[in-house]
Amino acid sequence: MNVRDLIDLGDFTLDDWHKILYLAEDIYQDPMRYSSALHGKILATLFYEPSTRTQMSFQAAMMRLGGQNIGFKNPSSSSISKGENLKDTIRIVSGYSDILVIRHPKEGSARAASLFSACPVINAGDGGHLHPTQTLTDLFTLRRVKGRLQNLRIGLCGDLKYGRTVHSLIRAMSRFPGNRFTLISTPELTLPDYLVKETGAQIERCDSLEACIGDLDVLYMTRIQQERFASKEEYARQKGVYILDAEKMRLAKPDLAVLHPLPRIDEIDRAVDDDPRAVYFRQAEYGMYVRMAIILLLVTEQPDGAVTLLPAREGEHCANPSCILEAEPYIGQKVLEEDGGPRRCAFCEHAL
Amino acid sequence: MNVRDLIDLGDFTLDDWHKILYLAEDIYQDPMRYSSALHGKILATLFYEPSTRTQMSFQAAMMRLGGQNIGFKNPSSSSISKGENLKDTIRIVSGYSDILVIRHPKEGSARAASLFSACPVINAGDGGHLHPTQTLTDLFTLRRVKGRLQNLRIGLCGDLKYGRTVHSLIRAMSRFPGNRFTLISTPELTLPDYLVKETGAQIERCDSLEACIGDLDVLYMTRIQQERFASKEEYARQKGVYILDAEKMRLAKPDLAVLHPLPRIDEIDRAVDDDPRAVYFRQAEYGMYVRMAIILLLVTEQPDGAVTLLPAREGEHCANPSCILEAEPYIGQKVLEEDGGPRRCAFCEHAL
Amino acid sequence: MNVRDLIDLGDFTLDDWHKILYLAEDIYQDPMRYSSALHGKILATLFYEPSTRTQMSFQAAMMRLGGQNIGFKNPSSSSISKGENLKDTIRIVSGYSDILVIRHPKEGSARAASLFSACPVINAGDGGHLHPTQTLTDLFTLRRVKGRLQNLRIGLCGDLKYGRTVHSLIRAMSRFPGNRFTLISTPELTLPDYLVKETGAQIERCDSLEACIGDLDVLYMTRIQQERFASKEEYARQKGVYILDAEKMRLAKPDLAVLHPLPRIDEIDRAVDDDPRAVYFRQAEYGMYVRMAIILLLVTEQPDGAVTLLPAREGEHCANPSCILEAEPYIGQKVLEEDGGPRRCAFCEHAL
Repeated sequence: MNVRDLIDLGDFTLDDWHKILYLAEDIYQDPMRYSSALHGKILATLFYEPSTRTQMSFQAAMMRLGGQNIGFKNPSSSSISKGENLKDTIRIVSGYSDILVIRHPKEGSARAASLFSACPVINAGDGGHLHPTQTLTDLFTLRRVKGRLQNLRIGLCGDLKYGRTVHSLIRAMSRFPGNRFTLISTPELTLPDYLVKETGAQIERCDSLEACIGDLDVLYMTRIQQERFASKEEYARQKGVYILDAEKMRLAKPDLAVLHPLPRIDEIDRAVDDDPRAVYFRQAEYGMYVRMAIILLLVTEQPDGAVTLLPAREGEHCANPSCILEAEPYIGQKVLEEDGGPRRCAFCEHAL
Repeated sequence: MNVRDLIDLGDFTLDDWHKILYLAEDIYQDPMRYSSALHGKILATLFYEPSTRTQMSFQAAMMRLGGQNIGFKNPSSSSISKGENLKDTIRIVSGYSDILVIRHPKEGSARAASLFSACPVINAGDGGHLHPTQTLTDLFTLRRVKGRLQNLRIGLCGDLKYGRTVHSLIRAMSRFPGNRFTLISTPELTLPDYLVKETGAQIERCDSLEACIGDLDVLYMTRIQQERFASKEEYARQKGVYILDAEKMRLAKPDLAVLHPLPRIDEIDRAVDDDPRAVYFRQAEYGMYVRMAIILLLVTEQPDGAVTLLPAREGEHCANPSCILEAEPYIGQKVLEEDGGPRRCAFCEHAL
Repeated sequence: MNVRDLIDLGDFTLDDWHKILYLAEDIYQDPMRYSSALHGKILATLFYEPSTRTQMSFQAAMMRLGGQNIGFKNPSSSSISKGENLKDTIRIVSGYSDILVIRHPKEGSARAASLFSACPVINAGDGGHLHPTQTLTDLFTLRRVKGRLQNLRIGLCGDLKYGRTVHSLIRAMSRFPGNRFTLISTPELTLPDYLVKETGAQIERCDSLEACIGDLDVLYMTRIQQERFASKEEYARQKGVYILDAEKMRLAKPDLAVLHPLPRIDEIDRAVDDDPRAVYFRQAEYGMYVRMAIILLLVTEQPDGAVTLLPAREGEHCANPSCILEAEPYIGQKVLEEDGGPRRCAFCEHAL
């Protein structure tokens, strides 16, 4: 691995991705071989917003490597949230632990934490921004159930405008040849243009699941939140079009793989659960093996690389109200700049 | 063991009960021999209502077997309670773990969980319905302190109408020969008639602890909740009759054993705590060894049997408002039917 | 060790202190040698008020010794706080565990817990009264960074009237020869006279950090809570005098050591964090090693001594409204009496 922390999947090379996926497969095949690999090591899970399943997945991963866990699951039941800033908490807790997982409602918080931490940091979700272990889980699931990460026709259904996991999946799968994406959503909730441009992904659009499910190798379902629609009536009128049920499954290929990051609300009918093409529960389980691989690599390799953050110029500061800098300004503006691209906030990645 | 899950003590054979009790005794005698028995294994404790001591007892049991724990202790501090249904949670969490303990305010929830779980399920209390590890703890305690499970005169004092642990204890002890039960309660809070019929237990009634304590081998105390009485005045007038104090202990046999499932409110005076016949604190400790035995047997034997649940007939559905089916109807009605008995809800066991 | 429990640092001999500090150093030098020392053992952390970092420090300490943890972190998310008294909780939980850590808002609660516990008890803070593992951490830090515990000029800045850690540090450091204390605070927040008398400490007073920082070997910073001041205006006017910043650091000796029990509010400017003389983050990390040493000694040595508590005389009872006896009177008044001193409550140590 070339960097110490997993903040953004893009910080890692494609070789690193493969290394994680191969190790995850190896652990999955023979978990007992790894059951004492991290004996005596401690993972801290700092969840500034509750996400019980994600946290349990990390905790179980650490335990299955022989390690142990400290942390908190909810700022409101912890004394840390009141009065103590992110920097001091990370400095202190990273002194107790060997690796640290952070989930935080502010965008860029995980990058900020990595600046202060004495040990590797894994981003388990920073607001609506990134959630790289979910994307690695998706890749691992596709590799296991489809046998390949290329030449796939991938349907993406639901809220494609705000869906963090969908954006990451498109970014990730665009790096493998021959993948095509079918966007299944209302026009209001379709993928942002900049993502299409940025990734160069091959895109088709479709306004009903029924119309295109027959062409897909993979169907990635996500929640549509009612509050995204213009009105309650609009929601009631449209939601049926994007609900996957047994009837629509009859139109699909026999080797379709249905994924979902979970939790679902009602966008997948429970009758679909028993269909062998429904892999979302296995996907959740696979997430534990992927997290085992990531934790093991970061703790044992102790890579010392870091992403380069540039100093801000006079007067340059991030205007994104959801950025961690807004809540904890002492962190100080830093900047990312890629060849030819705009200067962006090093934390939330908004253009400056 | 002939079934995979411990939902209802009645699902297990008497041989299974003995197997658990013997193993618990063996672990109690030489705990270090078992201290790595479940190395690398994970217990999930899913507490949909808080019960800190019960949860700690399970967690300590798993740790003393060399295993580790994940879970939550309070739905309000967890993201699982909001939005996610029981089925999805159980499917996902059982994918992370080797055995699962559930406590839930709805009756029948543990049976429902066992339908969805990829690993064995232990019922740690489903509403006012069942709590089988408490009853096994009571049996283990009686075996240790009385040396036998038969030919005992057992006084049951407190709220016998609603007390889940009392009902289970009578059911369990009625399966051993020669046991007699003395019910010590107000007429309003006495044992339901169906339980007397069902168990065929030998019953006497007594309206004051003082009058019958001298005859007892075992006194099983329980809380009387003030709200069970007709009025505050009635409570104030009656409660003294059912409070165990040093004075009443002077009337008891020298080898009486006083049990209580704890926590107590004020039905046992603290002055009794130092009497060697007070075994309730030891009883709590014994609970940990019983839970070690149960966990160890279910994880290592992986029995694949299950209780037979019948499909519901047209129009048949459970009307119990406290049943898990009321809250999560997608689970679907199932039915239990015993020779000659009524058809009952397979979850909460109410007659249909 | 001559007593079983660590309630008050004064219960231990100076030899015991050295034993703890030497062991902590040994663990710090070679932690892996101790990584299975407490395999199969359980630490219970019972936090009746949240203190996330202190609890994580104890948990991490136990894990790094190969042991595991149970407990609760917040009475409001636990079922124990409602209805169950301290005695029953301690009796039961100590039956599950090998050592117990308690933090509680009432003064004297840890001493009370030690009366009921089946295993050793460590006081992790009982109201504003004692917090001995913090003081041992301070001693360990001074030994590591200054190389000695004597002949030090120690500045104490902030709220010296109510600051529990400051009082304990003065008591502790007064037992080593040649230490002098410089009190840096407003007159309203200076050290109580009885402490000066009791310890016989060599004291100087100074009303500005700037004026005396140049003379100090050690600067122990603490929070000043706004509500301690006469008015908001008074706070605003005075607080700058007691804030440590880079400018004041320029006046200090090159080998000054700045300590702080953390969390800080704004009494140390973040610019000081990168100064090598700022040792407060290392101090927090050292706390974990000190706690490892204490836990290891108490669990493995199982000392059976206890502090002598005298029975109360007729009519003698503690009037301190923050005493644990006020909340849980069944515990019963006990008394401490030292040669020539007044009779004091054995729990909160207030004069009777």
